[in-house]
Amino acid sequence: MPNLDPIELERIVDAALTEDLSGGDVTTDSLIPAHIEASASFIPRTHGVIAGLDVAKAVFARVDKSVRFTPRLIDGDVVEGGETVAMVTGSLASILRAERVALNFMQRMSGIASMTAEFVAEVEGTDTVIVDTRKTAPGMRALDKAAVVAGRGRNHRRNLSDGVLIKDNHIAALQAEGLGLQQIIRRARAQAPHTVKIEVEVESLDEIPAALDGGADIIMLDNMSIAEMRAGVEMCRDKCLTEASGNVSLESVREIAETGVDMISVGALTHSVIAMDIGLDFDELEQ
Amino acid sequence: MPNLDPIELERIVDAALTEDLSGGDVTTDSLIPAHIEASASFIPRTHGVIAGLDVAKAVFARVDKSVRFTPRLIDGDVVEGGETVAMVTGSLASILRAERVALNFMQRMSGIASMTAEFVAEVEGTDTVIVDTRKTAPGMRALDKAAVVAGRGRNHRRNLSDGVLIKDNHIAALQAEGLGLQQIIRRARAQAPHTVKIEVEVESLDEIPAALDGGADIIMLDNMSIAEMRAGVEMCRDKCLTEASGNVSLESVREIAETGVDMISVGALTHSVIAMDIGLDFDELEQ
Amino acid sequence: MPNLDPIELERIVDAALTEDLSGGDVTTDSLIPAHIEASASFIPRTHGVIAGLDVAKAVFARVDKSVRFTPRLIDGDVVEGGETVAMVTGSLASILRAERVALNFMQRMSGIASMTAEFVAEVEGTDTVIVDTRKTAPGMRALDKAAVVAGRGRNHRRNLSDGVLIKDNHIAALQAEGLGLQQIIRRARAQAPHTVKIEVEVESLDEIPAALDGGADIIMLDNMSIAEMRAGVEMCRDKCLTEASGNVSLESVREIAETGVDMISVGALTHSVIAMDIGLDFDELEQ
Amino acid sequence: MPNLDPIELERIVDAALTEDLSGGDVTTDSLIPAHIEASASFIPRTHGVIAGLDVAKAVFARVDKSVRFTPRLIDGDVVEGGETVAMVTGSLASILRAERVALNFMQRMSGIASMTAEFVAEVEGTDTVIVDTRKTAPGMRALDKAAVVAGRGRNHRRNLSDGVLIKDNHIAALQAEGLGLQQIIRRARAQAPHTVKIEVEVESLDEIPAALDGGADIIMLDNMSIAEMRAGVEMCRDKCLTEASGNVSLESVREIAETGVDMISVGALTHSVIAMDIGLDFDELEQ
Amino acid sequence: MPNLDPIELERIVDAALTEDLSGGDVTTDSLIPAHIEASASFIPRTHGVIAGLDVAKAVFARVDKSVRFTPRLIDGDVVEGGETVAMVTGSLASILRAERVALNFMQRMSGIASMTAEFVAEVEGTDTVIVDTRKTAPGMRALDKAAVVAGRGRNHRRNLSDGVLIKDNHIAALQAEGLGLQQIIRRARAQAPHTVKIEVEVESLDEIPAALDGGADIIMLDNMSIAEMRAGVEMCRDKCLTEASGNVSLESVREIAETGVDMISVGALTHSVIAMDIGLDFDELEQ
Amino acid sequence: MPNLDPIELERIVDAALTEDLSGGDVTTDSLIPAHIEASASFIPRTHGVIAGLDVAKAVFARVDKSVRFTPRLIDGDVVEGGETVAMVTGSLASILRAERVALNFMQRMSGIASMTAEFVAEVEGTDTVIVDTRKTAPGMRALDKAAVVAGRGRNHRRNLSDGVLIKDNHIAALQAEGLGLQQIIRRARAQAPHTVKIEVEVESLDEIPAALDGGADIIMLDNMSIAEMRAGVEMCRDKCLTEASGNVSLESVREIAETGVDMISVGALTHSVIAMDIGLDFDELEQ
Repeated sequence: MPNLDPIELERIVDAALTEDLSGGDVTTDSLIPAHIEASASFIPRTHGVIAGLDVAKAVFARVDKSVRFTPRLIDGDVVEGGETVAMVTGSLASILRAERVALNFMQRMSGIASMTAEFVAEVEGTDTVIVDTRKTAPGMRALDKAAVVAGRGRNHRRNLSDGVLIKDNHIAALQAEGLGLQQIIRRARAQAPHTVKIEVEVESLDEIPAALDGGADIIMLDNMSIAEMRAGVEMCRDKCLTEASGNVSLESVREIAETGVDMISVGALTHSVIAMDIGLDFDELEQ
Repeated sequence: MPNLDPIELERIVDAALTEDLSGGDVTTDSLIPAHIEASASFIPRTHGVIAGLDVAKAVFARVDKSVRFTPRLIDGDVVEGGETVAMVTGSLASILRAERVALNFMQRMSGIASMTAEFVAEVEGTDTVIVDTRKTAPGMRALDKAAVVAGRGRNHRRNLSDGVLIKDNHIAALQAEGLGLQQIIRRARAQAPHTVKIEVEVESLDEIPAALDGGADIIMLDNMSIAEMRAGVEMCRDKCLTEASGNVSLESVREIAETGVDMISVGALTHSVIAMDIGLDFDELEQ
Repeated sequence: MPNLDPIELERIVDAALTEDLSGGDVTTDSLIPAHIEASASFIPRTHGVIAGLDVAKAVFARVDKSVRFTPRLIDGDVVEGGETVAMVTGSLASILRAERVALNFMQRMSGIASMTAEFVAEVEGTDTVIVDTRKTAPGMRALDKAAVVAGRGRNHRRNLSDGVLIKDNHIAALQAEGLGLQQIIRRARAQAPHTVKIEVEVESLDEIPAALDGGADIIMLDNMSIAEMRAGVEMCRDKCLTEASGNVSLESVREIAETGVDMISVGALTHSVIAMDIGLDFDELEQ
Repeated sequence: MPNLDPIELERIVDAALTEDLSGGDVTTDSLIPAHIEASASFIPRTHGVIAGLDVAKAVFARVDKSVRFTPRLIDGDVVEGGETVAMVTGSLASILRAERVALNFMQRMSGIASMTAEFVAEVEGTDTVIVDTRKTAPGMRALDKAAVVAGRGRNHRRNLSDGVLIKDNHIAALQAEGLGLQQIIRRARAQAPHTVKIEVEVESLDEIPAALDGGADIIMLDNMSIAEMRAGVEMCRDKCLTEASGNVSLESVREIAETGVDMISVGALTHSVIAMDIGLDFDELEQ
Repeated sequence: MPNLDPIELERIVDAALTEDLSGGDVTTDSLIPAHIEASASFIPRTHGVIAGLDVAKAVFARVDKSVRFTPRLIDGDVVEGGETVAMVTGSLASILRAERVALNFMQRMSGIASMTAEFVAEVEGTDTVIVDTRKTAPGMRALDKAAVVAGRGRNHRRNLSDGVLIKDNHIAALQAEGLGLQQIIRRARAQAPHTVKIEVEVESLDEIPAALDGGADIIMLDNMSIAEMRAGVEMCRDKCLTEASGNVSLESVREIAETGVDMISVGALTHSVIAMDIGLDFDELEQ
Repeated sequence: MPNLDPIELERIVDAALTEDLSGGDVTTDSLIPAHIEASASFIPRTHGVIAGLDVAKAVFARVDKSVRFTPRLIDGDVVEGGETVAMVTGSLASILRAERVALNFMQRMSGIASMTAEFVAEVEGTDTVIVDTRKTAPGMRALDKAAVVAGRGRNHRRNLSDGVLIKDNHIAALQAEGLGLQQIIRRARAQAPHTVKIEVEVESLDEIPAALDGGADIIMLDNMSIAEMRAGVEMCRDKCLTEASGNVSLESVREIAETGVDMISVGALTHSVIAMDIGLDFDELEQ
């Protein structure tokens, strides 16, 4: 499980609180006396995988250090809906000020984890792993990627610095300069840090021999038919890793995995998130 | 159309670029010579409403001032899929460095605008407006709300400071202290700035007379049946605005609007966004 | 009492400490051994209303977590001069490093609270409230407005987003485009969020009927004579709130309030602050 | 004239714009079409010394680079009231969004400059200079001190790092440890950077011989009578600089200066600012 | 050549200018009239490799946009000492304010590039590359690593996220839990992103078979004798990359390279930098 | 000993952690279970002066509040190599994440302190003090200067605001305008704050009379021979302080000190740092 950088977590939490709370909470300020204490439970309304508990905890701590947030589960746990995933107790005014921001984090992250878990379940029994992409909500990448891991997906590149990925446009530009695919990969190998892997995107089987010859560590089979993908995986066997990309859905993912591809990347995990419905139910205030 | 605060826009763009680019782009740095110029077109693959053009422009400008980003449309324009919404020309290396971040903004914002437009279309001909909520992606509120406006939705409260919204938990806490709903609303009126409106959430019709008597400016009819909602709207007519909230879908929204309610708030507009599929096609590199 | 957003408070405190302390305190660093402990009392030299105690506490905590700042009063309490409003104990060096910044906050905020209290006292017995404006010290708005509340004034708009205020220049620009005042207000109603109120500035009684007809929630009577204001208030009775603005002084405010106006806004509360004279007297060091 | 550090200026301007504009300007966004151009004049309503023109220019540039702000005067120029000190032309919407923040800066800074100029005028013909203190509005020190210079005052220490100032509390603490004043000053000389001057606060004439013997560069005569001060100045002649401090008013400053003291520090210049009344009059919109 | 992230560059430049210039430049402010223009040349006093030209340019631009900084060379060019590497022309006051900070950047970066080039020259003719480490000046990593590239060294991991490096302490901790080296490497392969390489530090030849069996991509031969290293390289031939680390000096580096190792990492390149002596000679002011 | 501003310390620590850890630590995240506790010792491998202990402590606290960092020595203590200067105990994963950044700070600061101590030792028995310059690593000035003090050197100007230093280029520019050196110094005295000293750089003995006549507080003897310097010191005796600057080495510094100069400034202390070799040895993991 990735451990969140505390400075990045603070930046994200502060940005979220600032946009909601920087002018104060006129409702709570006007109505809720400081002496009222409360306790409340975070309760998902649906089945899924919970994520974001540490972030929610950080939100409450930032608003009021004396509020206690007590997780009952940890990120990655499966919930059925209706059970308490965390409790929060302390000043009612502080809880109300922080509630929406804490829920926004948990609902998005749990949505990502849950969708990831569905994809992972589909490929169960194969050796294929589900990986994310850089198609994350701007400013939220660290959390979006942590949520993928909570759903038992794996992270692809975090950013443009931790892996070479030679895409169609890189290739087209360099071919226009007279370079072949082998030469392109070798230039990358010669120029990029020795410590990063080199992945190459291919759109037809014809390109694979050159990619292998150039020494690609990973070949991305982009938008291929199942038959092509199976052939591509075969060509790469024992030579490099393979990644399937493009138009992956819950319906198609199993068939893709059965081609033997090593990784399937799914942009929708983070670019088209369905928030998990999670409520904050106040225990003490109900009569 | 809301005008984005340039400082907030810079903060959001910088956060997104930092998480993708702060270690450099090892692929482009290794492969693409500085002298290569290119031009490319942003082309949606589907029908929808475009949004985020100004943000994408700011992304390219931040990476390389000499890159020219030329919108062909403006935020809020309807696209059918296949047409060019913007062109970008300049250093190929700079375009490749900024591409993913620019697309992440446009795809999310266009997704929000498009879903909003679908809801707005459903209620066409009624006097009801579709409004957003505070259930936005953390750190992205200003852009999420701008995208709602691009889809011809309207913005509800931006944050906790620009309107009083008395919810069930506020009421429960104060009733436990012995206050009735009228007293609660009057306390809010006495304590909150004179310049903000007071909205009250009610869960049954029984609460409406007290809310009106207390002087609510807006009454939120929360999770009511269509019949209840119609009765609630009737009770509030000419006395205050009404807002429907809870479990609103494209299927149900028309029927809700036909109750005569003034606003329908839809959390899914921003918490469960389906990114619009937009591609960046390089014109010059294709052979 | 508004609850300060902890992130905004931290930003303001850090800015103030940075400009005073970022290069170190060469006097204290050179002279004061780390082992010396001290305790000192914050003592106003004059009558007034104290404010800024929480901010001063945050200043000391930021410089040295082990320093204890103990308020004896709370913001909004009246002081006569000579009594202790707070104690600070701990490392003498830390107290000396933080002293000036803590005093700068308390003196300005107590000055605002005291002047506000004077205006509030003048209108006692009427239903009129004293409100502030956006004429605050740049970067200090949250604290300036908290200090007004400490003096029992009320806050007007915090910023440009939490209320519509249509001023003379908006009106002139749109009249040049052929719009009348009713149309202008209706455009604002149609375009601005449903959750904010609409206030209109009028400079003569002639404009009031159109403003009422357009549906203004608040009418600002700008720079009117007492007689005009009384007539304006009468025209608006039971139709909308009224606000008096312009050239309000301690001498004139009672007469203005007696016109029955709902609010009187006083820019001087925050733009022309007379700092309260507050000293920090070291108890332990005196011989 | 001090040259503002561009990074500090940007921080201050951004803080001021963020607190006013971060949620957008709902009035202008709702009403003012983007195509309307306008020009307006900054016109002081009273006599005084103008300051803050560069800051106002930076405010408009930050909101909209295409707005042109053209100063007619420079900081430090005397105005009578009624003349144009600067023009601003461009998008009406942008001008309205930036107006209040720009005015808040100019009004505070011109207020400081004007009060400083009054003190300077009082001591004209003497060799005494008027200096400021560290009693500035938190976060605004760079601008507060620039405004003092605009009024022909001089800056005292900017912060705790650019000069040693041994005050009563430092002395009391070290005397409790058994050190005499000479020893204290010598310790400071030995410990502090060689490049900074050492100033010592004395409260009676008795302390001056020891301060001189210790090698003080400047002696602050704190809260002394005119007679004492004259004697103190005499004791220090040709040995060190002298500074008068405490309860300086426009009424008393001349008499103090005539004691021959080198500097008179006036906290009120920055802690109790009376904002200059400056208006922004739109030329084009008036009919 | 790595392309500096503009946001990271701005952060570093702003930090450096803030610590030098935030209180103003009292010398230049006091003495240099705004109208004086000057031009000056950056001239190294010694042989070496120049680096930091873009950073120096950014420094001047941040202080005064109207100053023109014109490089005559580019980063990575060899200089003999005495030639002009860049010219700066514009306001003398602005040049003086920015001079020290610009030189601090260029002198450190050129020192790094020059030392790197010396190491690279020593291994010329072998296939071994010289790489840097994470032992950089805190906050300066992006620039320190860019300077290594200017000297024709190569970058190792930028940070803890872009490569797995299993060190002695990781191994010891897991061996204490009962895991062997193969198992440790396989766990890393299973848990870490597929896109990163796995490097393992070994301290004796005995560990190499297990490291190879576990599937290490790179084996770091730590503090080995030349003979051991030669044997280690032989064991790894065609199986994985090898890196020599520990006590590398200009005297020993050639012998190490001749073992056939793929990379030699040199911490001193960035942790013990000898600044290049570069002067800024004013052309116009000399008489 | 200078006391580090906590806000500046936080900025520097955060910048260093962000560049190393913002994407997570893929090695530790993949391998090290959260339950493993460890303790480790910071042990210098060589003789020198230790510095940076408080900074290292702040690094661990920022990564994980539960990690305990216990210094055994304080900054400025002499170490022989092999002894423990500090212990760290707690989560192994957290210690591994923070280790490199903590060491980078300690190694640089201890390197500065050690080199400073060597210079100070060379001049022992004279009255000359060793001072630093503004030639610090960009962004690290506060720590570089604290390390000089740990080595018993003294700080020269922290930045451009806390002392006037009139250099050759200032003089040349103003002489071109017709001013003599006396006039230049007097202009500085008249314009700069009274609280700062004025230092003048002279390159030949001829300039000293004018500098003294102008009233310089300090005269910098730049790049002079020992004989010239001795004569210069003589000319300045009892009139002003003197500073030697330029080409100072461990070999030459004693001879320079024996001229009687008050200060010798050494740029190499901070611009050409040799990092102290310090290791972090894990006690618990060794078997």
